[in-house]
Amino acid sequence: MAELAGNCLIGQSGGPTAVVNASVAGIVTEALNHGVIEEVYGALNGVLGLLNEDLVDLASESQQTIRGLRHTPGAALGSCRTKLKKPQDIERALEVLKAHNIRYYFHIGDADSQETAQKIAEAAKAQGYELRVIGVPKGIDNDLPVTDHCPGYGSAAKFIATTVRELSVDAEALAQNDIVTIIEVMGRNTGWLAAASSLAKRRDHPNDPPHLVYVPENAFDAAKFADDVRRILKREKHCVVVAGEGLVDKDGNYVAVESSDNAAAAQFGGVGDHLREIVETQVGAKVRVARLGVAQRAAAHLASKADADEAFLAGQAAVKAAINGETEKMVTLLRGDGDHYTCETGLTAFADIVGNVKKLPREWLNEDGVSMNFQFYRYATPLIQGEVSVPFDNGVPAFIRLHRESVDKQLPGYEA
Amino acid sequence: MAELAGNCLIGQSGGPTAVVNASVAGIVTEALNHGVIEEVYGALNGVLGLLNEDLVDLASESQQTIRGLRHTPGAALGSCRTKLKKPQDIERALEVLKAHNIRYYFHIGDADSQETAQKIAEAAKAQGYELRVIGVPKGIDNDLPVTDHCPGYGSAAKFIATTVRELSVDAEALAQNDIVTIIEVMGRNTGWLAAASSLAKRRDHPNDPPHLVYVPENAFDAAKFADDVRRILKREKHCVVVAGEGLVDKDGNYVAVESSDNAAAAQFGGVGDHLREIVETQVGAKVRVARLGVAQRAAAHLASKADADEAFLAGQAAVKAAINGETEKMVTLLRGDGDHYTCETGLTAFADIVGNVKKLPREWLNEDGVSMNFQFYRYATPLIQGEVSVPFDNGVPAFIRLHRESVDKQLPGYEA
Repeated sequence: MAELAGNCLIGQSGGPTAVVNASVAGIVTEALNHGVIEEVYGALNGVLGLLNEDLVDLASESQQTIRGLRHTPGAALGSCRTKLKKPQDIERALEVLKAHNIRYYFHIGDADSQETAQKIAEAAKAQGYELRVIGVPKGIDNDLPVTDHCPGYGSAAKFIATTVRELSVDAEALAQNDIVTIIEVMGRNTGWLAAASSLAKRRDHPNDPPHLVYVPENAFDAAKFADDVRRILKREKHCVVVAGEGLVDKDGNYVAVESSDNAAAAQFGGVGDHLREIVETQVGAKVRVARLGVAQRAAAHLASKADADEAFLAGQAAVKAAINGETEKMVTLLRGDGDHYTCETGLTAFADIVGNVKKLPREWLNEDGVSMNFQFYRYATPLIQGEVSVPFDNGVPAFIRLHRESVDKQLPGYEA
Repeated sequence: MAELAGNCLIGQSGGPTAVVNASVAGIVTEALNHGVIEEVYGALNGVLGLLNEDLVDLASESQQTIRGLRHTPGAALGSCRTKLKKPQDIERALEVLKAHNIRYYFHIGDADSQETAQKIAEAAKAQGYELRVIGVPKGIDNDLPVTDHCPGYGSAAKFIATTVRELSVDAEALAQNDIVTIIEVMGRNTGWLAAASSLAKRRDHPNDPPHLVYVPENAFDAAKFADDVRRILKREKHCVVVAGEGLVDKDGNYVAVESSDNAAAAQFGGVGDHLREIVETQVGAKVRVARLGVAQRAAAHLASKADADEAFLAGQAAVKAAINGETEKMVTLLRGDGDHYTCETGLTAFADIVGNVKKLPREWLNEDGVSMNFQFYRYATPLIQGEVSVPFDNGVPAFIRLHRESVDKQLPGYEA
């Protein structure tokens, strides 16, 4: 394979995670190891930066800053939810890539973003412009196919499990009267995050909170829910409920959606209050609701070390793959077969990713439909191991900011 | 002063905090230093345990367990919101104290609880039963008078400031379109917790998030709020709002209360959604709401070391005071005068506490009414310093549980 010399560009896309910047750090670190990559650029706000030619020089950032990315939440380069829909957008993106001799494009994102990366790769090929495009997975929802799990999920899972354990200990202290604690978690149409709350249970204590976990893969039934709560209150005097934001009823309709111009952009939220109403009217117990919201993907102070390390590894693997001539592929995480958890990286074609969603396997739930069995624990437990050492400054975590040294524009402006 | 030999009893009351168990640890540790205290008992669920004669032997707990209390949230002895209303309840409480030769009673709680402690002390005095009663303050709301601050507040403040910083970093990444992040925090009728979110700002970066902080001490005006949001969106493209759950309008009515049989028991919640509606209808921006809920008082994994140490200190001080003959007093925290923060303990009469609420001083807010000035920073910054080292087990914080070895009952049962 011929060596391809040129510059590389990194873009971030979609909702940030606690460790998505660790992938940026992995890419930058690895890119600087290879002589064929000359400049290391970042696109501000993903494809928007590509369209607007808003590029920054990442190689000029200090080592300290790049290291700091490993514990900084958000998207250090800025993110966006923009898709390249119009043919002229793709055309423009290519012009910008060419103008800066970008030969390596690394796109960190979820399924939608991988589709964008694929479009750019295809257009380059059609024009005979040699460009290698590699995707890096990210997302707390953990719903990307092929990859064993998604960087970002482990940290969100750790935050949720910790918070559920803490809220449960608090609730227990006041459990003389029936009290129901409802925790609404993210996850859109899959139950990976809701299921992760089960990691709050101590080993061999199946009756520990959370007592009832509702996932979107399982049709929600209000009457069964009320029965479930009554059963737990009888046994424990308090009941901790975890509900995924995207719960659906037996007809497939969302139980609670705040706004939904279209399914993809649906803004979830409100399941907790919906369940509260059921408990108050049908069970008659006191309820308190917590909606963890974006904290689930931003809580870098409690990131999983395993997750942060794998996010970094995925970034490195993307560079290695591209250097080796790979393109139009996304990095995947592969779990070893042994009893001891190991994780390596692999590659999968963009085509395998786009349009596919990985649901929580139904057989990982117990028959009661509200708790997880050993298969889920075996899967998820390794992903939340270890803590990231976050520096604190004056009592709060110190996050870094990129200096964002602009790369000189070569092209006229563009109306995206 | 004559030495008073006998047993001691500890009770916890009201909503737990991340560090209320550290006060229990302080009391137990100190009590064992004094020969005159023979047995160290705990009442399960506060005064309920006193009425039901549900006492446990704390001296029989392992050293490890008592040390573990310093990082365990909730109320290890159980808590309650019960008040001793009927004269026969007070009578019964005294009978139980006498039956177990309790001569020292330590009550960890907020203003309501200190009132209960006072009643017990008065009844003992009336009967000529020598009993020393010392209160230990606790509460994330920080609204107890006399004491400089309340154990529990610093940890909640640290959690809120950290979470607001993390949510803000996340919001910034997607700030190409106007986006408003609303974070609803606890605090009932005072703004101490909402104000604490300001600690998320970097030093000398007054424009950092949170951009708008609404406290109950300041009448809430929907039109001004909409103007405030518009002003920030123009400047920053995104806007982070923090709102206290107990906001009131100019007539003193709660802006949003979920249930309110009576003022004291009012269950707050809903301010965030109320503000969302104002933004959506009057400003027309995208909104996301987080309601941190009980996580604010339970997040021991992010407790302030200063706070945890002071909670322990307050417990120790209670024992020392009682041994020195003090009674019917609550421990207070006293701040030193110097530039360098120091904290010692003092005492104040129960009578000074009961029925009083310490509001956030109006002059600690800037003229804009939505940000805090240096006086607040000077006050609150020392309270969130340092991190507590929490052991993790299998990816989640390991909290301890008391073995709760029962003390043999001496009396017939009682219908509380």
